Amino acid sequence: MLDQAHIAKQPKLFSLSSNYEMAEKIAETAGIPLSKVSSRQFSDGEIMVNIEESVRGADIYIIQSTSFPVNDNLWELLIMIDACRRASANTVNVVIPYFGYARQDRIASSREPITAKLVANMLVKAGVDRVLTLDLHTVQVQGFFDIPVDNLLTTPLFAKRYINQGLISEDVVVVSPKNSGIKRARSLAEYLDAPIAIIDYAQDDAMREEGYIIGDVSGKKAILIDDILNTGKTLAEAAKIVERGGATEIYAAVSHAHLTKGTAEILNASPIKEIIATESIKSKYKQPSQLAYISASQLIADAIMRIHQRQPLSPLFSYHSNEETTES
Amino acid sequence: MLDQAHIAKQPKLFSLSSNYEMAEKIAETAGIPLSKVSSRQFSDGEIMVNIEESVRGADIYIIQSTSFPVNDNLWELLIMIDACRRASANTVNVVIPYFGYARQDRIASSREPITAKLVANMLVKAGVDRVLTLDLHTVQVQGFFDIPVDNLLTTPLFAKRYINQGLISEDVVVVSPKNSGIKRARSLAEYLDAPIAIIDYAQDDAMREEGYIIGDVSGKKAILIDDILNTGKTLAEAAKIVERGGATEIYAAVSHAHLTKGTAEILNASPIKEIIATESIKSKYKQPSQLAYISASQLIADAIMRIHQRQPLSPLFSYHSNEETTES
Amino acid sequence: MLDQAHIAKQPKLFSLSSNYEMAEKIAETAGIPLSKVSSRQFSDGEIMVNIEESVRGADIYIIQSTSFPVNDNLWELLIMIDACRRASANTVNVVIPYFGYARQDRIASSREPITAKLVANMLVKAGVDRVLTLDLHTVQVQGFFDIPVDNLLTTPLFAKRYINQGLISEDVVVVSPKNSGIKRARSLAEYLDAPIAIIDYAQDDAMREEGYIIGDVSGKKAILIDDILNTGKTLAEAAKIVERGGATEIYAAVSHAHLTKGTAEILNASPIKEIIATESIKSKYKQPSQLAYISASQLIADAIMRIHQRQPLSPLFSYHSNEETTES
Amino acid sequence: MLDQAHIAKQPKLFSLSSNYEMAEKIAETAGIPLSKVSSRQFSDGEIMVNIEESVRGADIYIIQSTSFPVNDNLWELLIMIDACRRASANTVNVVIPYFGYARQDRIASSREPITAKLVANMLVKAGVDRVLTLDLHTVQVQGFFDIPVDNLLTTPLFAKRYINQGLISEDVVVVSPKNSGIKRARSLAEYLDAPIAIIDYAQDDAMREEGYIIGDVSGKKAILIDDILNTGKTLAEAAKIVERGGATEIYAAVSHAHLTKGTAEILNASPIKEIIATESIKSKYKQPSQLAYISASQLIADAIMRIHQRQPLSPLFSYHSNEETTES
Amino acid sequence: MLDQAHIAKQPKLFSLSSNYEMAEKIAETAGIPLSKVSSRQFSDGEIMVNIEESVRGADIYIIQSTSFPVNDNLWELLIMIDACRRASANTVNVVIPYFGYARQDRIASSREPITAKLVANMLVKAGVDRVLTLDLHTVQVQGFFDIPVDNLLTTPLFAKRYINQGLISEDVVVVSPKNSGIKRARSLAEYLDAPIAIIDYAQDDAMREEGYIIGDVSGKKAILIDDILNTGKTLAEAAKIVERGGATEIYAAVSHAHLTKGTAEILNASPIKEIIATESIKSKYKQPSQLAYISASQLIADAIMRIHQRQPLSPLFSYHSNEETTES
Amino acid sequence: MLDQAHIAKQPKLFSLSSNYEMAEKIAETAGIPLSKVSSRQFSDGEIMVNIEESVRGADIYIIQSTSFPVNDNLWELLIMIDACRRASANTVNVVIPYFGYARQDRIASSREPITAKLVANMLVKAGVDRVLTLDLHTVQVQGFFDIPVDNLLTTPLFAKRYINQGLISEDVVVVSPKNSGIKRARSLAEYLDAPIAIIDYAQDDAMREEGYIIGDVSGKKAILIDDILNTGKTLAEAAKIVERGGATEIYAAVSHAHLTKGTAEILNASPIKEIIATESIKSKYKQPSQLAYISASQLIADAIMRIHQRQPLSPLFSYHSNEETTES
Repeated sequence: MLDQAHIAKQPKLFSLSSNYEMAEKIAETAGIPLSKVSSRQFSDGEIMVNIEESVRGADIYIIQSTSFPVNDNLWELLIMIDACRRASANTVNVVIPYFGYARQDRIASSREPITAKLVANMLVKAGVDRVLTLDLHTVQVQGFFDIPVDNLLTTPLFAKRYINQGLISEDVVVVSPKNSGIKRARSLAEYLDAPIAIIDYAQDDAMREEGYIIGDVSGKKAILIDDILNTGKTLAEAAKIVERGGATEIYAAVSHAHLTKGTAEILNASPIKEIIATESIKSKYKQPSQLAYISASQLIADAIMRIHQRQPLSPLFSYHSNEETTES
Repeated sequence: MLDQAHIAKQPKLFSLSSNYEMAEKIAETAGIPLSKVSSRQFSDGEIMVNIEESVRGADIYIIQSTSFPVNDNLWELLIMIDACRRASANTVNVVIPYFGYARQDRIASSREPITAKLVANMLVKAGVDRVLTLDLHTVQVQGFFDIPVDNLLTTPLFAKRYINQGLISEDVVVVSPKNSGIKRARSLAEYLDAPIAIIDYAQDDAMREEGYIIGDVSGKKAILIDDILNTGKTLAEAAKIVERGGATEIYAAVSHAHLTKGTAEILNASPIKEIIATESIKSKYKQPSQLAYISASQLIADAIMRIHQRQPLSPLFSYHSNEETTES
Repeated sequence: MLDQAHIAKQPKLFSLSSNYEMAEKIAETAGIPLSKVSSRQFSDGEIMVNIEESVRGADIYIIQSTSFPVNDNLWELLIMIDACRRASANTVNVVIPYFGYARQDRIASSREPITAKLVANMLVKAGVDRVLTLDLHTVQVQGFFDIPVDNLLTTPLFAKRYINQGLISEDVVVVSPKNSGIKRARSLAEYLDAPIAIIDYAQDDAMREEGYIIGDVSGKKAILIDDILNTGKTLAEAAKIVERGGATEIYAAVSHAHLTKGTAEILNASPIKEIIATESIKSKYKQPSQLAYISASQLIADAIMRIHQRQPLSPLFSYHSNEETTES
Repeated sequence: MLDQAHIAKQPKLFSLSSNYEMAEKIAETAGIPLSKVSSRQFSDGEIMVNIEESVRGADIYIIQSTSFPVNDNLWELLIMIDACRRASANTVNVVIPYFGYARQDRIASSREPITAKLVANMLVKAGVDRVLTLDLHTVQVQGFFDIPVDNLLTTPLFAKRYINQGLISEDVVVVSPKNSGIKRARSLAEYLDAPIAIIDYAQDDAMREEGYIIGDVSGKKAILIDDILNTGKTLAEAAKIVERGGATEIYAAVSHAHLTKGTAEILNASPIKEIIATESIKSKYKQPSQLAYISASQLIADAIMRIHQRQPLSPLFSYHSNEETTES
Repeated sequence: MLDQAHIAKQPKLFSLSSNYEMAEKIAETAGIPLSKVSSRQFSDGEIMVNIEESVRGADIYIIQSTSFPVNDNLWELLIMIDACRRASANTVNVVIPYFGYARQDRIASSREPITAKLVANMLVKAGVDRVLTLDLHTVQVQGFFDIPVDNLLTTPLFAKRYINQGLISEDVVVVSPKNSGIKRARSLAEYLDAPIAIIDYAQDDAMREEGYIIGDVSGKKAILIDDILNTGKTLAEAAKIVERGGATEIYAAVSHAHLTKGTAEILNASPIKEIIATESIKSKYKQPSQLAYISASQLIADAIMRIHQRQPLSPLFSYHSNEETTES
Repeated sequence: MLDQAHIAKQPKLFSLSSNYEMAEKIAETAGIPLSKVSSRQFSDGEIMVNIEESVRGADIYIIQSTSFPVNDNLWELLIMIDACRRASANTVNVVIPYFGYARQDRIASSREPITAKLVANMLVKAGVDRVLTLDLHTVQVQGFFDIPVDNLLTTPLFAKRYINQGLISEDVVVVSPKNSGIKRARSLAEYLDAPIAIIDYAQDDAMREEGYIIGDVSGKKAILIDDILNTGKTLAEAAKIVERGGATEIYAAVSHAHLTKGTAEILNASPIKEIIATESIKSKYKQPSQLAYISASQLIADAIMRIHQRQPLSPLFSYHSNEETTES
């Protein structure tokens, strides 16, 4: 019942510039060497991509996180897609572990763009057949596409870690550091069989110091969970509030660690004991001392091979199928 | 600086079958009589729409909530759009006070459709130029379209009512009856300068009775806020939990009252004192005795006229501009 | 010269809600069990489709007549298509034995929609790759699509039956019960080597009783042929005129029996001896006593398998290839 | 209520090469001089179109029948559309009195194209906003477009002529010279309050001489009606059959006279007394002596001006509104 | 690593009307007989294409130069594409050895069309998946498409010939007969290791006789190179100028010989010793006595087979891979 | 004959980040103040655009050169377009004085992208209605769009300057510093009534020092002309060759001065007396001492106003209409 000819033919994996290390790890896990592509940026900022082997008739997977510098990374990706299409690739699949601009997913005030939709439109117009990504900021972004989008989840990876650490049940509380993250906290809480709490802020930014906790953290080990770690202020502030609320230990899990200048200092000064994150973003900035990476590469490699072999991805979304996932 | 010729020419407002009363109220407020259209449904269920006056060169606004029977109402709308396009309308704008299928906005488990996006695609392919709607279930649905979508808000209408009733400040708590509604609760809380609380459930439906409150309602007047009222179970259950939590009085506000068989009984038996809703959906079912309608027709009529006259809609999103809004 | 890998892989057949019996018969004939899908309709009329097995990389055939309730059946079909696309089906083919809204194929008076084209546009936008249907009301509807549309014919099925019954040559006259059906009568007449006649009406509906026959039926066995049987009035009135014209026996053949309330009574009271129809539509209404079903399931099953195996469909359009067709 | 600025601005009418005389007559009737365009064909057959005045912001109406040489005429039209779009025309409307390739509107046997749909797709892709045409071969071709298509009718023009000639009521029979033309005969018969008859042929072309009449023409004045006159064989053969059937006088009306070599001889030898046609096609071949042209230019000019002034076209489809139509 | 099932299945090659001889030569070289198609043109100029064998699931290559009569040849191609699509071809590839209208690739003066882009849009909208062509007039025309376009080059064919003739190095000068052809001259010069020269004209056509040479040809063998030979005036004039400049022998190479009436006379009277061209265009006009054809059929056949077998085309662009190319 | 209402309404001009000075000069010349927009770039590189006044119903002109940093500037432009579309702008026109990536307009070697076409596709998909640009690298790039593209020319500006300086006729030679620039040299030569020459290089970059001149510069004043000045090497090398060839004075004109690190040093060391360029690019690098700017702002402002007022742009392409152009 399988299309043996198709499966016998390996997919081609290419890594662009944003995170070559992760791409290599994915390729190694998948048992397929990275194909050759080179990319130069000229003095005027223009990017030239050279695909150094034939892609005619091949199923292409381009691995590129659209993290900083997001605009360069996006154009590099779009240009690569255009080159693959014109060079007669059979299908062009993009693997975007970190999907930049995902937070601009709605019109929050008059005359705002919806840049996440714009990015989706640009990718599709350039010629993408499929998107594979990791923990989208908002799940509705899948609907910004009409092509298949597989959104792998980080929560099962985090849950497995915490269960191994014995962080489960009523001794633990999962805390969303902002009210919009409640769904993510709810999801981790299911795995850990723990209650949740939320840090709530009035919208007015000037009042930010006025954050307060809704729910009970007193005497519990608190796990803060968020999708993107950037300046570190959200986590640090939440940790302070949770500490004041009587938590005994504070942990944090973020899907994407998009560190910037000063993040390490802010988090090092916070009462957070350990922060876990996937390696979806390669950062040039100093890392907080508590940061440990949990690899999502095997999950992504499994997904690529299942997609290529026309096998369902659903097993990847359940906890037990990830037993063999190793940490970095 | 204005295009006087365009403004002098009135838009044409048409009402389809779902909620003629609301359409009439909008038309009356806008000072423009409803244009003539008739619609028949044959014994095989097929709908035939007859536009009974010329629409050549006109700016058309079709008013239709896509509430029950949602599939008939959607096809009636699509057929009307097709007829307008072929009859040389200048622009075709749809006014959808209640946007059906909006809750199917993401893939929650394997192989699910994203029906809200499908609806958006069908409307655009049929020939819509613009959508005007009221309190979308998820704001990201705006991004399912690439045409302009104006999403009017009900929160300012509700806030005005509660402020007039003195329901403000620390005596009050705004409660989201489910954790996904926290943003809507947060928004009303801003207006009332009140704290928020959340009713949280484990995802397993069998455990639903296990719902519990996060946050403090003891001794306060609680306002439950949600976007869609359907069976009434969510509100009734939340009210019970809030009552157990020590709330002194319980109110509820919902944008869309999509009543069904048994809703009235369930809510009449609940400790909710008053439920307010807009008239976006015309229901044939018995109403709960506590239900009072707050009209959104003037808000919609204002929006139509501002769109037609090329004036910004931003004033409609602020609280004070709605001073003159009258209740039904 | 064949793509063995592709052929070895079976297509997946799914039945939606409109006519599960016919879908089962098609599946049985094709030797492929129906794949699993479930569909619920909520109290607000919204439909949720759940595909209960992987469709990744598969060639999908969705069987759904868009008969009453046509709008629900169309949305169920569109939603299923969307779900298949997002779940990475290889191709999505729809099998629509009865194609609803096909009669609204032109603008008959000012400002009418062309709903048959709208339906075509919606199907294509939702993601259909191919349509397989049975005796379209107007053949031009094929041109409403730019994807392949295979329109199977019922006339050879009917011809075989009549030839077996000895209804051939100059003793017989094929009668179109309305002037627009002349092409269908001409086609059956070719097979039977018989002349044709037409029932003509002035367009004014008030004059309907004034129908008269063009051509000679006196002393002959008359076969009325039409594509859709709905209220039964057209056939009954034609039978009366043909009887007055001196026909000795009256038969009728219709491709699609879309019975409604009262159809049975009207036809039972008519001088028609036998009515044959395919099982394209499952009706909940009482059947006229003269109605016999001629199965089109084998024809459709053959077409599906030929399409899947990349074999020409042309043999299915000739009379002799249908020798093995059995009646229901 | 009218957009005075728009109406004050005149449309621009351009004539391409196929029928400059008709274009001039339309322009004269509309009171708008033809705008300047020149077109050359090089030795390799390539066409170069030069628009010799600014079209920026203008509403353009390009008049071109796609009669012989149809492929050159179509490319000239497509190239002109492209030039108008790039030169910033506001809208590009095409006026196609004779719509070539309209007869290839369905797949009559395996692997046929649907060229009429292809033509529609090419026009739309090139950038057309609207089509104005005269008596399409099949009305369903309107549905091949999703842009507005106004299909003017010739039947009222013909009816007026015959009524003036006293050719009405039971003394007259309207005859379709082939069974597919029954609708057109029915329509003229309504105006003349006369019965209809049909010439029927078996499909096998070798049997063509076996044509016979269905209906009664004996002792009546017969009016043959068809949309396209090409070789003249269809009309001549029908006339012979009608004459044998006992008709006292024979007339013929055709919307489009696409004469070819030998048409004149064939029709001069037939018993047809008079043939009327519109001037939609300019022919270089000898005309049959009975041919008289009925001008459709005023009808088209009226339609252009109504479209431009955003007035309904519906009055042009009724008989009495054409009172002032003059014959050529 | 190859898709054996796909490769085992042969592509289907069809020749349309423009150059059956070249198509046969390509088919013979590829070892695949031409598939059966017939095409008729009616008296009104309309073309009907009949595909006389099944194309369901096949990879189709349609061979058609869009030379004179370009508009007929283009429509024949578009109609064939439409028929293939509707008949369920797997892919539709067009092989256009001479790409007509390619010179209208820019807006040279106000309100000009860009007909080369229009042609590209028409082909893609009709349903083409891929274009294979030979020495496009301007390489930028590849970018008029978003589908893969393989543009084979004639320069290596010409270079091989001249090297075999010993026309290399400093004894030779490659001359562009007009300043826009400098790139083509530069490319041939690379192969021959020779310098270049240019014939320059002021833009004013009236001054054409004022052409003069830039660069040194004195005492050298001059090779004129151009892409399209049409009237012969450009080459003849250039030859005269080069002769006056002191060239000892004059040769010419053109990719496409689109001869017209008088071309032979003009070139016979010129001092050009030999003209080489590919057989991309079949001409009915008299050939200049110096004209020799260099076959491009093997190059095209190789490209078709490599495309079908998913092998890179890059070897075809290098000189040495064409060693085995034989001359006609 | 003009649409007074439209003209009375002013367009809205917005400047994005790349060249605010030029935008201000354009706005000032047009007599229309720049509208308010702000744009921020976050630490992750994401850009947020805020339009600070209503654009509903307005004709928007966004001024942005896509020079360094080209990827940021392109995304800023795309995001602004998206925001304008969603905020109900009537039309969105982009003014791109320097069109980045224009040189990647063809596939020069296997598997290259055509990034200029990709940029065109992205702009159109984002929602652009029209492009106004200045001296595109290749005129065929106009055909990469199907929307109107007005490509203003710099040659008349340069010609006027040189004529004023007396640099005309046989004393002067216009030199293209590379063979691909011959058309631009030819165009300037027309204005100056001067001959041309070309610097030719073998393609092999290693041989670049082997450049040589074709044509005669001895004893003449040479004007080098190119479209883009980047590192300065091309001009410097050409100047050296021209000097060796005996030119008495050397001038240079470039449309776009995209200076980079080291450009100033290279050119200062060259024998070029004066370099003129438009202000299309704002550079942060040191300018060569010979560089003088010729303003193109009035030309662009004139074009915007003519477009908005629906007047032909053709006068802007002729020399004399630019009489009033002032230098910066």
